[in-house]
Amino acid sequence: MEDKIKSGYLYDFYGELLTEHQRSVYEMSINDDLSLAEIADSLSISRQAVHDILKRCDKLLQDYESRLHLVEKFMNIRGDVIRINELTEGNPSEATLSEISRLSQLILEEL
Amino acid sequence: MEDKIKSGYLYDFYGELLTEHQRSVYEMSINDDLSLAEIADSLSISRQAVHDILKRCDKLLQDYESRLHLVEKFMNIRGDVIRINELTEGNPSEATLSEISRLSQLILEEL
Repeated sequence: MEDKIKSGYLYDFYGELLTEHQRSVYEMSINDDLSLAEIADSLSISRQAVHDILKRCDKLLQDYESRLHLVEKFMNIRGDVIRINELTEGNPSEATLSEISRLSQLILEEL
Repeated sequence: MEDKIKSGYLYDFYGELLTEHQRSVYEMSINDDLSLAEIADSLSISRQAVHDILKRCDKLLQDYESRLHLVEKFMNIRGDVIRINELTEGNPSEATLSEISRLSQLILEEL
């Protein structure tokens, strides 16, 4: 997964476990796509401080994922649901329903 | 949701954020269904200590859920996937595929 997209997912899942200050800095970088200098300016802190906070946030979010694996679980489920959705665009047949049944059972085992 | 079942889900999702000691005590209670006295005996600690640890774990797990809402999110998805799975047991028809399409899109919006 592309790093920035993955960071976004990790933040969606675990962002609430960061402090409010960490969240503001992280959101400026990930959501608003501001540069270190712009964030530093807007918060009146040094660029080094912004850099350290972002690095610390990445480490914390990755640490939560390495313990909980919920983003991984969610990505697997998402892949199966996208496949189910694609199958509904074809003609109705026993074979289609049987494949949807198999995929939905896979998801239920994962959940 | 019945309390013990809900505690089980919370533990499945966030258990890895507890300490190893908290996890052992919690698993004896939730997975092995041991009494306070049995857990206390097996760990050579007081029943009061076991009680306090369990209460603390419940609070921590509920606190993670109140911040992240991931159990709630996954439970919603689970309900929709169960419905999709039920629909695959009927006859193949446009209407069935259209309802599966609707449900799978709902899930993708949630994910």
